Amino acid sequence: MAHSQLLKKAAPSLDTLQSLVKGDLAQVDQVILKHIDSGVPLIPTLARHIIASGGKRLRPALTLLCAKLCGYSGERHIYLAACVEFIHTATLLHDDVVDESALRRGNATANEVWGNKASVLVGDFLLSRAFQLMVGDGSLKVLKILSNASAVIAQGEVLQLTTANNPETTEQQYLDVITAKTATLFAAACELGAVVAEKEEKEEMLREAGLALGIAFQIMDDALDYAAEQATLGKSIGDDFRDGKITLPVILAYARGTAQERQFWKRTMEEQNMAEGDLEKAMQLIHHYQAIDGSIALAETYCETARKLLKPFPNTPEKAALLETIDFCTQRSY
Amino acid sequence: MAHSQLLKKAAPSLDTLQSLVKGDLAQVDQVILKHIDSGVPLIPTLARHIIASGGKRLRPALTLLCAKLCGYSGERHIYLAACVEFIHTATLLHDDVVDESALRRGNATANEVWGNKASVLVGDFLLSRAFQLMVGDGSLKVLKILSNASAVIAQGEVLQLTTANNPETTEQQYLDVITAKTATLFAAACELGAVVAEKEEKEEMLREAGLALGIAFQIMDDALDYAAEQATLGKSIGDDFRDGKITLPVILAYARGTAQERQFWKRTMEEQNMAEGDLEKAMQLIHHYQAIDGSIALAETYCETARKLLKPFPNTPEKAALLETIDFCTQRSY
Repeated sequence: MAHSQLLKKAAPSLDTLQSLVKGDLAQVDQVILKHIDSGVPLIPTLARHIIASGGKRLRPALTLLCAKLCGYSGERHIYLAACVEFIHTATLLHDDVVDESALRRGNATANEVWGNKASVLVGDFLLSRAFQLMVGDGSLKVLKILSNASAVIAQGEVLQLTTANNPETTEQQYLDVITAKTATLFAAACELGAVVAEKEEKEEMLREAGLALGIAFQIMDDALDYAAEQATLGKSIGDDFRDGKITLPVILAYARGTAQERQFWKRTMEEQNMAEGDLEKAMQLIHHYQAIDGSIALAETYCETARKLLKPFPNTPEKAALLETIDFCTQRSY
Repeated sequence: MAHSQLLKKAAPSLDTLQSLVKGDLAQVDQVILKHIDSGVPLIPTLARHIIASGGKRLRPALTLLCAKLCGYSGERHIYLAACVEFIHTATLLHDDVVDESALRRGNATANEVWGNKASVLVGDFLLSRAFQLMVGDGSLKVLKILSNASAVIAQGEVLQLTTANNPETTEQQYLDVITAKTATLFAAACELGAVVAEKEEKEEMLREAGLALGIAFQIMDDALDYAAEQATLGKSIGDDFRDGKITLPVILAYARGTAQERQFWKRTMEEQNMAEGDLEKAMQLIHHYQAIDGSIALAETYCETARKLLKPFPNTPEKAALLETIDFCTQRSY
């Protein structure tokens, strides 16, 4: 114990979380594999490609962990965690089409292998399957949480589209986008743990903690896209830059930049007129204006909010794992 | 009455249906307008474009009519008809992206005006909104019917993708595709009428009648894409031909064609190697092999199934309107 505590201090990881929900997560995988099956073979083929492509399974793991944190011992959390992963996967499929991405976590994206059409339609299928699974669960409360989340996510994605390529996007607009497109599903994933355990008084706390964690997570994700350690993420550095996606590092560097530097951001992000060496220049500016550190600092404030929200929970291994997940969020390099 | 009967005999239309549900349909429009509203202005703008672009509103009208047919007098059918239209609209948005269509009913498609990205994401939003509305309605039975329909529709769309460009597609494969992608929502739309009226014994009849009507409707839609009267549909003739979409007229002409003619279909549909005059040649072959008449004849068998299923219902204006809708299906020229 002392030893693992020491290791934890040295570098927080998702290992504790994953070991606590390992058995449940294996069951979630079974539910997922069973429910992506279809008489149309392209559907399981494509869905398996993205689901098996090595994601962290963070969102379903949060549902499982929060259910345990609330003392739940039934089976419903398995199905609801699968719903959460289906919604997430549907979003990823459509995201990759929208971003015209060719790589995700170092693997070819589904749209790259099977085309945009199949990705759009299989995404629709997975979203529908999620709702079928919720109907199977039978709780209108769950259906409400996840249909709301799903609508908010789509709105966040559209909002992101309307801020794309505009370096004058404000920090608040950026936060609105990531709250909707990312944090809302983290919030729902955590809240569902309290819902299945029928701990109504804990729903809001877990939802808010999940929301804060999700915001911190996305801020870090966006910061890491300009960080050298990115090779371990399997994602090539500068994807967001090349896509003209406006994230916090760019917003901070632009806000703090000179008129000449702002011209650089307008040429590259707004006009999408890129030249050799532009990514290096962007990274120099971002580092010069401490925009990565600034991002981490902002993420850390959300982590602190999440930690505070968890205070009322008793000190169990589940709570420790959740706190370590929060620590991991800002200290990870992948 | 005698005069309107005479007119009806002369040319069945959707007028009777539409006049019976006119008031309800206006309320459906209000619900739709209210629920496509969003803090992200692009969403209502784009959604309004497609929803207002002059569709027949056939699916929500069927929900409204079937509710009346079952003696329902509440308000739930308004919301459920809106759900049906949302699911339909989401499908259209994604369809137009998948088909790379530039025109729908004579108007520019949403993907043409706002790009594929916005169409994909607003489609996701509308589907999510549909589920939020169903949660508001509060019936797990409704949620089951429409989540099942939504999953089957997506499967049908993927199946269609896998048969695209293959002129050896069988009539059965074609029927599987259109049953899933079109008829399933007609079936659900009709079944919901019995569900809100709590006439459980009528659910299956209406579902099956809706399914048969939907199959007939899609067969006719596909036949009309090779019919000269198409100008009135606002759709240019030969869209399916140019897209390499395999529909019944092509399947029949291919099956009945000579080896040389099959080479023509393979070159145009499979290899997508099109030349000036190919559409005219395709239409000649389709007419030579009576593939339009053959399509109408097959559609008529499904209409007959639908009529038989409605026999047990008392002779009310609602039933007459439903029967006229069935007649209209195979006798329409738009």
